[in-house]
Amino acid sequence: MKINIIGRGNVASQFVKKFNKIPKLKILHWYSRSFEKTLDSNGIKRTNNLKDLKNADINFLMVSDDVVKKISKKITNKTFTVHLSGIHNLEELNNKGGKGVFYPIQTFSKKKDVEFKNLPICIESDTKSNFLKLKNLIKLLEAKPVLMNSNNRKYLHLSATIVNNFTNHLYTNAKDICIKNNIPFVLFENLINETTSNALSLSPRKSQTGPAKRNDRETINKHLELLENNSFKKVYKTLTESIIKYYEN
Amino acid sequence: MKINIIGRGNVASQFVKKFNKIPKLKILHWYSRSFEKTLDSNGIKRTNNLKDLKNADINFLMVSDDVVKKISKKITNKTFTVHLSGIHNLEELNNKGGKGVFYPIQTFSKKKDVEFKNLPICIESDTKSNFLKLKNLIKLLEAKPVLMNSNNRKYLHLSATIVNNFTNHLYTNAKDICIKNNIPFVLFENLINETTSNALSLSPRKSQTGPAKRNDRETINKHLELLENNSFKKVYKTLTESIIKYYEN
Repeated sequence: MKINIIGRGNVASQFVKKFNKIPKLKILHWYSRSFEKTLDSNGIKRTNNLKDLKNADINFLMVSDDVVKKISKKITNKTFTVHLSGIHNLEELNNKGGKGVFYPIQTFSKKKDVEFKNLPICIESDTKSNFLKLKNLIKLLEAKPVLMNSNNRKYLHLSATIVNNFTNHLYTNAKDICIKNNIPFVLFENLINETTSNALSLSPRKSQTGPAKRNDRETINKHLELLENNSFKKVYKTLTESIIKYYEN
Repeated sequence: MKINIIGRGNVASQFVKKFNKIPKLKILHWYSRSFEKTLDSNGIKRTNNLKDLKNADINFLMVSDDVVKKISKKITNKTFTVHLSGIHNLEELNNKGGKGVFYPIQTFSKKKDVEFKNLPICIESDTKSNFLKLKNLIKLLEAKPVLMNSNNRKYLHLSATIVNNFTNHLYTNAKDICIKNNIPFVLFENLINETTSNALSLSPRKSQTGPAKRNDRETINKHLELLENNSFKKVYKTLTESIIKYYEN
């Protein structure tokens, strides 16, 4: 299977690394506007011109959600093109060939290799043969294809944002508090693992504990005093109010 | 080592279960105001009268944070008494004997057994001999003693509330969205594990991704539309603003 890669962010870096290890896959061209036209260390042709992209089986549009429409418009080959965005419809692609979606339910960093095995990837496409191309590719990745239409995928993307981006921001602020008070963040390893394991295996609603659940104003006020000069105070208040409201009936 | 247990919530249930498996520990009395005065299936004497508690090595006050002061005042024996609250000072105990703190950094549910091995437990006490009693007990539990004064423990408790209670409320709302749209919440297993593993092994600040981090207003507005009739909208807005502000400089 011949593919082109468009983009060089965290997602593209991780996929290129993985694709390079699969003998049945060949990356024809890798595009980024900031590339020089040279071969990379694996012999992949890099380019800064979208017109260089030859016809292939799939173009992978691995760019930020906010530039999917704009960049897809500039794709001149007639190749089946997929974006990796959770929030965009299939139809928001402006390329000339077939259109599809290939949305991995995962967060990607440059530093840490992602495990593709059993990773759920939501797919959608305009034709059956294009759909089979995606299923075939997911088989090569040993990942897990999940058939999902654009409407459901939006809700999935919203939930993924809550589950990953928002919780990660909470971890960031908790770690900042720990650093300021010489508390090793790693002390929370068991707690974090128990919280996520309960959320996945039991019900997070039934696993809720803590001062907000009990509407324990004394503890809540003590916490707010500790946060006095901290812009995170509004987040604390909003989440606490939301928990109290959720369980008050 | 002889101990008394005061309380019958999630925490007490889990500890009693664990203590019963340790031959060197003997539970003399287990108090709850809702108990009948009978033996439980393990032969432990249950009581609804705090005056029944005989002298022991340690009284474990395993009650909600909001009743620690009140119930400790009613303890009449002269035994070294520890509370399991993250937010209360040692001095907030009103019992007659020695005072200590024994705060496990964990969330407890009745349904799922907690792993005590290597669990960090923050300890503090009024005398060296009482301190050694706690260390000894933690050794029997195969848990990990963490020496921490009351002031630092407050910040740890605040962080634990953020890391566990607040993230769990996010999981609850994400799961509600999924249930409403027929999306299996288990699809997020890889994502949740990657998020927590990055937070613990790398830095959550550096691992932040998503529409708020990029200040991608188009995606943020699409999400807010999906949440139109949902009281969770305020939580979404507050967290999004907080992320944007955190990274704007």
